[in-house]
Amino acid sequence: MSLIALLTDFGLQDNYAGVLKAVIANINPEAGFVDISHAVRKHDIVQAAFLLKYSFNYFPKNTIFLCIVDPGVGSNRKGIVIETKNYFFVCPNNGIASLAAKDDGIKKITLLENNEYFLKNISNTFHARDIFAPVAAHISQGVVTRDFGKNISHIEEISLPRPCIHPNYIEGQIIYSDAFGNLITNISLEEFKRFCGTKKFSAYLKRKKINKLHTSYAQAKDNEPFLIEGSFSLLEVALKNASAKDFFGAGEYEPLRIKK
Amino acid sequence: MSLIALLTDFGLQDNYAGVLKAVIANINPEAGFVDISHAVRKHDIVQAAFLLKYSFNYFPKNTIFLCIVDPGVGSNRKGIVIETKNYFFVCPNNGIASLAAKDDGIKKITLLENNEYFLKNISNTFHARDIFAPVAAHISQGVVTRDFGKNISHIEEISLPRPCIHPNYIEGQIIYSDAFGNLITNISLEEFKRFCGTKKFSAYLKRKKINKLHTSYAQAKDNEPFLIEGSFSLLEVALKNASAKDFFGAGEYEPLRIKK
Amino acid sequence: MSLIALLTDFGLQDNYAGVLKAVIANINPEAGFVDISHAVRKHDIVQAAFLLKYSFNYFPKNTIFLCIVDPGVGSNRKGIVIETKNYFFVCPNNGIASLAAKDDGIKKITLLENNEYFLKNISNTFHARDIFAPVAAHISQGVVTRDFGKNISHIEEISLPRPCIHPNYIEGQIIYSDAFGNLITNISLEEFKRFCGTKKFSAYLKRKKINKLHTSYAQAKDNEPFLIEGSFSLLEVALKNASAKDFFGAGEYEPLRIKK
Repeated sequence: MSLIALLTDFGLQDNYAGVLKAVIANINPEAGFVDISHAVRKHDIVQAAFLLKYSFNYFPKNTIFLCIVDPGVGSNRKGIVIETKNYFFVCPNNGIASLAAKDDGIKKITLLENNEYFLKNISNTFHARDIFAPVAAHISQGVVTRDFGKNISHIEEISLPRPCIHPNYIEGQIIYSDAFGNLITNISLEEFKRFCGTKKFSAYLKRKKINKLHTSYAQAKDNEPFLIEGSFSLLEVALKNASAKDFFGAGEYEPLRIKK
Repeated sequence: MSLIALLTDFGLQDNYAGVLKAVIANINPEAGFVDISHAVRKHDIVQAAFLLKYSFNYFPKNTIFLCIVDPGVGSNRKGIVIETKNYFFVCPNNGIASLAAKDDGIKKITLLENNEYFLKNISNTFHARDIFAPVAAHISQGVVTRDFGKNISHIEEISLPRPCIHPNYIEGQIIYSDAFGNLITNISLEEFKRFCGTKKFSAYLKRKKINKLHTSYAQAKDNEPFLIEGSFSLLEVALKNASAKDFFGAGEYEPLRIKK
Repeated sequence: MSLIALLTDFGLQDNYAGVLKAVIANINPEAGFVDISHAVRKHDIVQAAFLLKYSFNYFPKNTIFLCIVDPGVGSNRKGIVIETKNYFFVCPNNGIASLAAKDDGIKKITLLENNEYFLKNISNTFHARDIFAPVAAHISQGVVTRDFGKNISHIEEISLPRPCIHPNYIEGQIIYSDAFGNLITNISLEEFKRFCGTKKFSAYLKRKKINKLHTSYAQAKDNEPFLIEGSFSLLEVALKNASAKDFFGAGEYEPLRIKK
């Protein structure tokens, strides 16, 4: 069974995600599906790229990632398939798969040009259904990527903000907030430890102070925010059984400053 | 693998959609599932019928559609399976599958009467689990529809509102709003073009004016609403990277008037 | 095909539920998935246990339930697999599967200790991904439970509140409210009938009176609340095509008193 992993900003209210799977099943009835998320913030390519970067390597070799956040649909932005060391990424060439593909090692980038592999009628507004899903299905059936079109040598790239690490402070930021209200920063535990070891520290988020680093949620006291290495292997600002997002009134792009 | 497509108003909060799949897997472990949507507005048969009409023909031949918006559960409304040219629709006889089934071509309508194909205990409130899901599963295993009960000659039907096309104006309406805030009208691009060709037009939605027709979102200026042929092959009122629903404060059933 | 049923409080916004399936597919590409729900109230083990109790027996024999509401992740709470008469429950030992497992009949409880069956890197915050999902996948491939670790003789248990049945009244409570706004009580139809037969009764919820018992939603008048035996085989407080939750302004744990 070929596995197709889906990541979109379509939500689950409409029939859009279901229709993608219908199109694929119509070409390859044996394809299996795993939804990474359909709840990427609308039009937010960076958030999708972040989620993909921290998801792809849990999937089996040869998984085909169908990644669609596509505000440029119908414009002259191109559709591509990126073949990496272990995977295929089918997506608009807008950076959505650039972080994951580079992490895995890009082998080949192919433009989606050959309409033999598309639906017969191509809309201007839903290439996910008309182009990207059929191409993913054909890859799952063994069509080789050179059959889709010309190779290109570079993809559009996006980048995540990096923390500034000074001798006296780290200035990072929140790059994702999850449904538990955990605030994921762009600072790794390693960067944090290199900066202040096991010594005391003070972190500030929206003028509120955090001075605890825990290794589990259960260690913390109620209503006391803390830092923890979370499931993205990044430092998170968290509360025990409560939402740090609500506690701090902070969301993505909020700066976090750590001092010794 | 037999494919069963699900369309309900159950939402994904409760265990209801999962239990439908459990019941099916218990009868046919090889059945595959695609969720069209479980977020139909509660009790809104017309919205479900609309989504089904614009989804079904992307699915493989012989897909079994399990369509459940069922405010009449436990009353004397009947359960049916509709066999069409390419598909099976298992549903209460309340019009939910009528648009899709007529589009595909109805071959046979069978009442669900034979409790040999139901769960042993039939509740009064959850026939989706106790009757419709088991029937769908049995169809996926090759049970022929005549085994479920008597044939009937007509199904309950619903209809979508049609636009009024006058020599001087088109009066249509919003029939669906999607999660992007696109407002899908009941006017086709063909009807629009027959009315005003490529000439100037003025459309009014809640007293706000729209006078652009675009072929992609990317063509538009920020904050300027426009018409576009969307993924339902219907004209949509849209904004670039923003919600027309919020911009206009308009939802389903709102009239839209187009003048030359 | 082995079926793995998932029940978590992860929501569908993030990549967490998708990553669980990726981990499983990476170990057993043939595993099938059914989501019971990922919308359990965050950290609410009792709600998860309730949903599991009323879902598990619709699943095929040998289904593996991956049940994760895990506020104690990273603490000294243990991970377990419970083998019952017909199923496997993989979960933290916090009571989440205790109601379902006891209903089905517990055969063996095994600690998850053997890290040969875990992911290589074990985080402190996401054992669902690093321990529980891989163990579920290995069970689906036939690994016997004794290979995971030592047996223990008891699991942590939780219990649902029981109604007080007096000669003159029943005092129950709302134990679940669903997405339709139905308020599910902890009183069975049998308990109700034993108490007042088919005679008149008055039930009170937040000082509003209910004095009808119906067998279908369609029987009811608009805007008139009623009792009905719902899909959990428990009495529900409901309204026809409307939300009892909104009508009463009542949610879980609200008392309901029934008098003759």
